Amino acid sequence: MTIAVGIIGVGVMGADHARTLVNHVPGARLRAVTDADGARARQVAAETGAETVAPDPMAVINDRSVDAVLIASPDQTHRDLTLTCLAAGKPVLCEKPLAPTARECLEVLAAEVKGGRRLVQVGYMRHFDPAYMEMKAKLLSGELGRAVMLHNFHRNVSAPTWFDAKMAISNSAVHEIDISRWLLDTELTSVQVFKPKIAGMAENGAPVFLVFETAKGQIVNVEMFNNAAYGYDVRGELVCEKGTISLRSPIHSEVNTGLASTTFYPADWRPRFADAYRLQMQAWIKSLSDGKPVGASAWDGYVTSAVGEAGHQSLAEGRSVRIALVPKPGLYD
Amino acid sequence: MTIAVGIIGVGVMGADHARTLVNHVPGARLRAVTDADGARARQVAAETGAETVAPDPMAVINDRSVDAVLIASPDQTHRDLTLTCLAAGKPVLCEKPLAPTARECLEVLAAEVKGGRRLVQVGYMRHFDPAYMEMKAKLLSGELGRAVMLHNFHRNVSAPTWFDAKMAISNSAVHEIDISRWLLDTELTSVQVFKPKIAGMAENGAPVFLVFETAKGQIVNVEMFNNAAYGYDVRGELVCEKGTISLRSPIHSEVNTGLASTTFYPADWRPRFADAYRLQMQAWIKSLSDGKPVGASAWDGYVTSAVGEAGHQSLAEGRSVRIALVPKPGLYD
Amino acid sequence: MTIAVGIIGVGVMGADHARTLVNHVPGARLRAVTDADGARARQVAAETGAETVAPDPMAVINDRSVDAVLIASPDQTHRDLTLTCLAAGKPVLCEKPLAPTARECLEVLAAEVKGGRRLVQVGYMRHFDPAYMEMKAKLLSGELGRAVMLHNFHRNVSAPTWFDAKMAISNSAVHEIDISRWLLDTELTSVQVFKPKIAGMAENGAPVFLVFETAKGQIVNVEMFNNAAYGYDVRGELVCEKGTISLRSPIHSEVNTGLASTTFYPADWRPRFADAYRLQMQAWIKSLSDGKPVGASAWDGYVTSAVGEAGHQSLAEGRSVRIALVPKPGLYD
Amino acid sequence: MTIAVGIIGVGVMGADHARTLVNHVPGARLRAVTDADGARARQVAAETGAETVAPDPMAVINDRSVDAVLIASPDQTHRDLTLTCLAAGKPVLCEKPLAPTARECLEVLAAEVKGGRRLVQVGYMRHFDPAYMEMKAKLLSGELGRAVMLHNFHRNVSAPTWFDAKMAISNSAVHEIDISRWLLDTELTSVQVFKPKIAGMAENGAPVFLVFETAKGQIVNVEMFNNAAYGYDVRGELVCEKGTISLRSPIHSEVNTGLASTTFYPADWRPRFADAYRLQMQAWIKSLSDGKPVGASAWDGYVTSAVGEAGHQSLAEGRSVRIALVPKPGLYD
Repeated sequence: MTIAVGIIGVGVMGADHARTLVNHVPGARLRAVTDADGARARQVAAETGAETVAPDPMAVINDRSVDAVLIASPDQTHRDLTLTCLAAGKPVLCEKPLAPTARECLEVLAAEVKGGRRLVQVGYMRHFDPAYMEMKAKLLSGELGRAVMLHNFHRNVSAPTWFDAKMAISNSAVHEIDISRWLLDTELTSVQVFKPKIAGMAENGAPVFLVFETAKGQIVNVEMFNNAAYGYDVRGELVCEKGTISLRSPIHSEVNTGLASTTFYPADWRPRFADAYRLQMQAWIKSLSDGKPVGASAWDGYVTSAVGEAGHQSLAEGRSVRIALVPKPGLYD
Repeated sequence: MTIAVGIIGVGVMGADHARTLVNHVPGARLRAVTDADGARARQVAAETGAETVAPDPMAVINDRSVDAVLIASPDQTHRDLTLTCLAAGKPVLCEKPLAPTARECLEVLAAEVKGGRRLVQVGYMRHFDPAYMEMKAKLLSGELGRAVMLHNFHRNVSAPTWFDAKMAISNSAVHEIDISRWLLDTELTSVQVFKPKIAGMAENGAPVFLVFETAKGQIVNVEMFNNAAYGYDVRGELVCEKGTISLRSPIHSEVNTGLASTTFYPADWRPRFADAYRLQMQAWIKSLSDGKPVGASAWDGYVTSAVGEAGHQSLAEGRSVRIALVPKPGLYD
Repeated sequence: MTIAVGIIGVGVMGADHARTLVNHVPGARLRAVTDADGARARQVAAETGAETVAPDPMAVINDRSVDAVLIASPDQTHRDLTLTCLAAGKPVLCEKPLAPTARECLEVLAAEVKGGRRLVQVGYMRHFDPAYMEMKAKLLSGELGRAVMLHNFHRNVSAPTWFDAKMAISNSAVHEIDISRWLLDTELTSVQVFKPKIAGMAENGAPVFLVFETAKGQIVNVEMFNNAAYGYDVRGELVCEKGTISLRSPIHSEVNTGLASTTFYPADWRPRFADAYRLQMQAWIKSLSDGKPVGASAWDGYVTSAVGEAGHQSLAEGRSVRIALVPKPGLYD
Repeated sequence: MTIAVGIIGVGVMGADHARTLVNHVPGARLRAVTDADGARARQVAAETGAETVAPDPMAVINDRSVDAVLIASPDQTHRDLTLTCLAAGKPVLCEKPLAPTARECLEVLAAEVKGGRRLVQVGYMRHFDPAYMEMKAKLLSGELGRAVMLHNFHRNVSAPTWFDAKMAISNSAVHEIDISRWLLDTELTSVQVFKPKIAGMAENGAPVFLVFETAKGQIVNVEMFNNAAYGYDVRGELVCEKGTISLRSPIHSEVNTGLASTTFYPADWRPRFADAYRLQMQAWIKSLSDGKPVGASAWDGYVTSAVGEAGHQSLAEGRSVRIALVPKPGLYD
């Protein structure tokens, strides 16, 4: 069985997804692409051999030959497009976030629950990153005892001018919120946000430091620094009762020159997580054949956004904020 | 265009190739598998969804729906099967070695030259390993000057009882012979083999140390240790005029426990070179569509075997041996 | 000029100081040792060649041939002994803490200020650790811009049964409080303490996580885990505007065995900071000759204790606590 | 007992020895320095507080208040000065080499044997390097089985114009010859030298690659590259039956900036081996008090030079050369 995929939105992320699909994923074909910028859609279609350039998202979703939809259009379109997919009964892999607000995520959740079957996967691709998978496997092996603390570091080279501390939380640190829940298999119960206040330091991309408590009593923290200058760098250390586990990034070579021994950072997240995106896409396509959902669910998408909003509140009020969630529907057990 | 592939031999290596093909390579289908052990062939077919289990290699090669053949049967069958593929005009990816002796390799070479087009790729997969590719790209960038020396280390956990020093050269160190030629873009001109003589040390898997000179005047050495006990480990350092480049192996996590900081080695070569095998297979399938040969050629297969035989001679005679090659046919320029 | 040193208290730390003095510090002689346990004092004197075993601390301080005093007796004796040294006009290197409470530290401060000259050094030896010195030098070079955040990790193998979260702060994390002030050349202005609450986890040695703000607006955090099990491990990363600097611990070799690549942690702090203790002692002895104070001052000792007490308050009250300090006397500028 | 030391030759190396002695070695005083360049001698004396500037080496050796002599004058003076010290019955730490030729080393050996007691130590300081000591301790622990191979790498930033391949062996690679013998506790029995021949590459500082066999049947190799450009770098890996042990160099910090993670190499050997020089000096002074010789003996100095000369012969003749040694006098057992 070959899954015919339609991709909505082929900017940087969507075009990468299209390439991943056609270059690395047997069992799938790229049936259609669409983009608000038609020229871009045609260019990506030409490069990837997509069968059709659709005029708009509805044409993709309503195309009867499209089996599954990947949404990589702007964040504010995610809710409506996902709801439309659900209404059409089509499986969807929606780039994070599931929706810009937790309230809107709940609408998607309600629709999926009403439909009675899991159709939505959210593109929190770190679940498929070999480093995080290895970290989780070591934790589950039990040889290090229980998890006590989790330290996360997430750094980008530079942030757009309009990228403020709220976006640092809801656009970037959500990856750590997601992966911390997944690694620790629990919910975050409170958040407190700290923000350096360096005289004259640009507001865009300025770092935030978040400290969470979990339902298991663990402490989780995240340094999110979108203007870290030196490279794209994601680190994590899980501190357990009998030892710790740290992530390693993919490094293929080391250069010795100019009195230095050097390894290199990528300029953005794509080389770092290329394997994760590839494995996520393969797993998604496979899940459509075997009917077993994988990856982040709509529930995960909702919770991550809800935690991010609690982070916004803590940032604004300068104090610890309790994280309140709706009860978890049985569909997601 | 979808390439229909037939795989001859589905032991450890061939079964892995089958999985790689069906799990990671779009644009191909696994048309047929065969194996001297019919039960094994049926099992691999069931696991991978191969369309047919062929009774013997000839049935695979002669199957008109098979577009291309992958040979992973025992070494002594490689020559005949490759010659048969050439006679049938079918592209072939032959696991290394191309043939057990340089003389037999020359027969394949002659047949391919006579046919006038490149159909044979030899499975020296390190050409596609991201670490070696990065090393070569750094060299070609010119920023470190010219290559002066190349140090190679190749260690296995343990060797079979019948694995002697000759096999260490012709079965294992051939990978370093191949990759050194590829990295340095030149031929090896002499070889001298050293062998530790430790009282009471088992002969099987005992280390050999090879020192080569190249046509560019460089020194290349290889430590080949098939009984190294501690893990599967391949290292390399390219020493240039202005600096050096070292390989790094894939490492995803680090564990701190028991007064130690630890990263892990795989028990065999497959995890280390999983990416290389995957990328080699994708590149081979793509080369069949676009008609541009990639990877190690039959010429490379011949030279590697010829160098290995010079190594055998040096091992036996305890002195430096000049490496003599036939003139390179224009087909391989 | 040879400095005659008297050491008060030759338990684990004091005996180490005695060995360091006699084995690594020219320009000094070990004139006297004393200890509440006379047998221990005699044993250390025999081992190190100390000239005298004094019956009690007063005998050391009052010995006219003793030029300088090193205090390594129990914490609750530090204030009185230091005050006695000041009264006698004798330079003193007092192990941390300067006194068990900030209030008592202020008594020492007042006495030193009244005397009008710097006689007290506190044994926060990390000021002399080559890794921290290199970190500070890189920061001062300016090439990475200004410091924005500082992450500290301090882990011990196991804690005594009576070692609670308050002690984790005032006995262990004080090293990070001290070194953070020194690295960033500023004061900490607030502290908030987080504590994992893992069901059934032992209270002794349980981790605390401290988040500080500095007068320059930076965020500093400390993971203090006295029961970390895996080894003695101190790490730090200074995040600046254009890059980061991380500490490396002394590692002399790497062992590959049993499918692992391994480096080793010491079981306690002494191997990690052996160089720092040696260089601190050399610098102290040199400072007595040239009259230029080095290392942590009584002011630093006071502030560190005051910050620790604010940490205790935050731990008890579960909220952020402002750190209030007395004005800094001009003697310490 | 305080040892009064006289230093002959205070160029780069001798001046460093003088500083090490006065800054790091209790139990010694710097009684006298001398140098062919009197101004330099006076300058070093002023800096280090040496008690006397002697007019010439004889004045140092004959000074009755000088207990022990450190020779750091040009290589061709080593034999005569050491013989003079032996004649005067004075212990001597002679910088390597003991003498420019093995024949001359034998004269020193004969004189010391005739005197009947060990007075000569040769400054092969790596015996005291913590990394090599840790490597040897791991080997002696037996947990990795017996040593099978030893790989050595020795790289300098740049070589003087007159520094040819012979000097690469007898001035630089002698350190590896020495330390390989010490680590493996055996003699080298043959040597073969390989030399890259890169068109247009400068002769000075050009690399040599040496392969040795040992009396225990092990293979030892040395890459000696005096013009390696990128930094001063010494590496070693000892390959044993059950695993390997690698040296690590002292690294205190890591800098992340400009898309790179960087650690630094020193520009010359002194920072790398500062601990070794310090510990060697402390051990030498201690050995003079307790009468137990430490470090490299005159025998070691002779053998190292003899092996280097065999290397010269192999370099000239392009073949393997057997290493012939005189019988080892009982004094050195």
